[in-house]
Amino acid sequence: MKGAMEKVREIWREGRRVGKEDPRRIVHAFKVGLALALVSSFYYYQPLYDNFGVNAMWAVMTVVVVFEFSVGATLGKGINRAVATLVAGGLGVGAHHLASLSGPTIEPILLAIFVFVQAALSTFVRFFPRVKARYDYGILIFILTFSLISVSGFREDEILDLAHKRLSTVIMGGVSCVLISIFICPVWAGQDLHSLLASNFDTLSHFLEEFGEEYFEATHDGDVKEVEKKRRNLQRYKSVLNSKSNEEALANFAKWEPRHGQFRFRHPWKQYLAVAALLRQCAYRIDALNSYINSDFQVPMDIKRKLEEPLRKMSSESGKSMKEASISLKKMRKSSSSDIHVLNSQSACKALSTLLKSGILNDVEPLQMIALTTTISLLIDIVNLTEKISEAFLELESAARFKNKKKSTVSSEKSGTVSTARAIQIKSHDDDHHVVTILCDDDISTTVEQSRGENSVDSCHHVAIKIDDDDSVHEKHEDGEIHVHASCVSYGQTNASDILDSGNERNSSN
Amino acid sequence: MKGAMEKVREIWREGRRVGKEDPRRIVHAFKVGLALALVSSFYYYQPLYDNFGVNAMWAVMTVVVVFEFSVGATLGKGINRAVATLVAGGLGVGAHHLASLSGPTIEPILLAIFVFVQAALSTFVRFFPRVKARYDYGILIFILTFSLISVSGFREDEILDLAHKRLSTVIMGGVSCVLISIFICPVWAGQDLHSLLASNFDTLSHFLEEFGEEYFEATHDGDVKEVEKKRRNLQRYKSVLNSKSNEEALANFAKWEPRHGQFRFRHPWKQYLAVAALLRQCAYRIDALNSYINSDFQVPMDIKRKLEEPLRKMSSESGKSMKEASISLKKMRKSSSSDIHVLNSQSACKALSTLLKSGILNDVEPLQMIALTTTISLLIDIVNLTEKISEAFLELESAARFKNKKKSTVSSEKSGTVSTARAIQIKSHDDDHHVVTILCDDDISTTVEQSRGENSVDSCHHVAIKIDDDDSVHEKHEDGEIHVHASCVSYGQTNASDILDSGNERNSSN
Repeated sequence: MKGAMEKVREIWREGRRVGKEDPRRIVHAFKVGLALALVSSFYYYQPLYDNFGVNAMWAVMTVVVVFEFSVGATLGKGINRAVATLVAGGLGVGAHHLASLSGPTIEPILLAIFVFVQAALSTFVRFFPRVKARYDYGILIFILTFSLISVSGFREDEILDLAHKRLSTVIMGGVSCVLISIFICPVWAGQDLHSLLASNFDTLSHFLEEFGEEYFEATHDGDVKEVEKKRRNLQRYKSVLNSKSNEEALANFAKWEPRHGQFRFRHPWKQYLAVAALLRQCAYRIDALNSYINSDFQVPMDIKRKLEEPLRKMSSESGKSMKEASISLKKMRKSSSSDIHVLNSQSACKALSTLLKSGILNDVEPLQMIALTTTISLLIDIVNLTEKISEAFLELESAARFKNKKKSTVSSEKSGTVSTARAIQIKSHDDDHHVVTILCDDDISTTVEQSRGENSVDSCHHVAIKIDDDDSVHEKHEDGEIHVHASCVSYGQTNASDILDSGNERNSSN
Repeated sequence: MKGAMEKVREIWREGRRVGKEDPRRIVHAFKVGLALALVSSFYYYQPLYDNFGVNAMWAVMTVVVVFEFSVGATLGKGINRAVATLVAGGLGVGAHHLASLSGPTIEPILLAIFVFVQAALSTFVRFFPRVKARYDYGILIFILTFSLISVSGFREDEILDLAHKRLSTVIMGGVSCVLISIFICPVWAGQDLHSLLASNFDTLSHFLEEFGEEYFEATHDGDVKEVEKKRRNLQRYKSVLNSKSNEEALANFAKWEPRHGQFRFRHPWKQYLAVAALLRQCAYRIDALNSYINSDFQVPMDIKRKLEEPLRKMSSESGKSMKEASISLKKMRKSSSSDIHVLNSQSACKALSTLLKSGILNDVEPLQMIALTTTISLLIDIVNLTEKISEAFLELESAARFKNKKKSTVSSEKSGTVSTARAIQIKSHDDDHHVVTILCDDDISTTVEQSRGENSVDSCHHVAIKIDDDDSVHEKHEDGEIHVHASCVSYGQTNASDILDSGNERNSSN
């Protein structure tokens, strides 16, 4: 008896947890209850019952099977079911008619063959990946309806009546599901995917912004609870590692959804998946980094300190770029300064390579060197990925038609960075997309001549150039500076390169 | 018209691809067709039809919905459906009876309330993770059956008759599914999971065994096609990266399956998942390693060569250990020499650290150093993971009761290794699990005194000791030698350590 009480209490706790995790679940349960109660009582009353007979139960069945958590999933199943019922009904009647022409002895054999062929073919088609993703349920219903109708054993006029009644009850059930799911506290899969991506950006940026603090903090004295909490917060990125199947399901559902809120019918959900995949790759690197923070074997602080500035900057600027993306997603406005953060992180990358070249680590022990350089290499990876993420995100922004934020001069908003930066975009004359972004320290006010061919940038600390040009082949520097995995800053060599010969850190000309 | 032909041809190609990928899919399609044709014609004949009436269609419906690809999934759904129908039928009749007592005006209201409460509660319970994993379908059927019966509007004796007929048709449909799925070319989810794990071991081991070749090969001259093919073969590991959801689904299905082949009813499927998760972690490291093989920036060969021996050995021995595991899985026999390979890779790890300590890399440029040490660090990670995998696999072997291969002296089977090895297990006297594995070169025949307290091993190259002891706290070496992430070889210090003081490579005593 006591055990049973314990069990009930445990279930209750689990229920509270599940409800707290996403309160919309409770609302969803009520919505399903409401839809079922409505449809049931609708059919309980005699006039309708007489009209539809036992077919009324198809409405109940449709509600139970079709009503899903999000609008997209419900719509997808509903449309699948309605279309499949219609098509299979037609074919089933046809098969029945064909069989009945052949006389009473061959009829059952013919019907069995029809059912067999239809079921085998449809079942096989369900293995096609593209079909499985979107139409699995429809094909299931197709098999079901076709089999039921073709072997029902009714006469043809009865069958037509049956098919008509069944279709209308299915549609009634489906429509009430869809209406309730759209108009009572709707759960949009698209909105969920959008928020999930934003929150993934958020958690990764949180880690990257805090990484410097964690890595270069000598010891954790102070409140143990505080440290625990911080560390737990840092570990939130782990949810990103396994978000793939969730994202794909949401994107699949979202494709069924009509225009809602700020999302159009053909919102670029695919691009969401592309960005999310890159973010996940970044999360793998972060997972590895995290193991270095928590590792028992620590590189002595005095060695770490030598590289503190560029390493801190690489991680925090990457983090800021992701933060920008997250804000941009939440507001559905184009981000303005995320580019700058990418460039900042890349310039920190360059500074790091200069530092390393200067032989600052020559007297470090090999085993410490391994731990240190692995951290470095992971951070370089993350900087490279941040660039890719930023590019993919720009595509997303324009494909999703985020609102523009017109600003040609922006300063990075965080007060944490010492130097604020300015970015100027120079659009070249022709159709090719030459976007030259020049990044200067702000404390020295320089004027940038934007005319083509001459461009005097006097005291820029670093000039980072990115040129998108589909015609010219991108060549890479041969100095291998920071090209550990991929190039950290990749210069493109194009026919517009004549405007770029000033810039005191471009140390090699092609 | 031409477009349509093209479309048809494309579908045909896709069908061939899907069928080739797993020919059992074609068989499955035929099985479903057969089951449906059987059940349909069964119910087409009058005597049965008169007996069951329209309820006959429940058999068809059950077959369509319950028949899944694997036996486990089919059984799971079938049992879910049968139990849910039974319970919901009972409760539905009860609800109907209760409502009918209250008089004709309140009855429909009461029924609607019952349906509402039942549907809302059940829908909410479906969100519980444990319920969702195994009983989702059962609860769906529960809601459906309860609603249908309680609002059916029949008199009570009719309902009992209805419930009885429906249950028997459901059971008939379910049983024919299960029988066909078990006795005609059965697809066992458990067997699939087993093979998947073995093939994952295989692909990772293939990469690790080939890694040295790829990494230390100066240029790829020779047949381009050959090189291409080799590289593609190497990339097979990528399938392991995303195998998680597949494995979990298979394990869930496998739990429903009865004893089959060499698998008992309660085969330790959970442990399969644990091993698979570790393998996946290893695959992430391999993914990173792979990017270094293909990177544009290469460490000069003369620098790589300095570390060639230990690096090659670390990777190939880890690979061999996984190969052993794969063979052991396929034969369902305990592996004998996988331990030795783990120890070999760890000793290579030690050799590497000695090399590094000797300052062999002192004159390497920092940027080359980064690329090189990241490779090293990844390989160390892989060696550590291989140990963990091997431990988890041992657990799996004993939990799954793999057959023993009684051999106290084994030689590593590959002809590639120069020295063959011998492993001797010493069981200590008491209940604690002190397993001491001593590994010697075979060409020098040494006798190992197995008496406690004295143990003269003369010319062992390396003595690796692993002691499982729950009571004593494992202390780690403080020299930090190869403890980059975790310790590469972790010595446990226990009360049995007095038997271990010989062994010329244990360079630090606690």
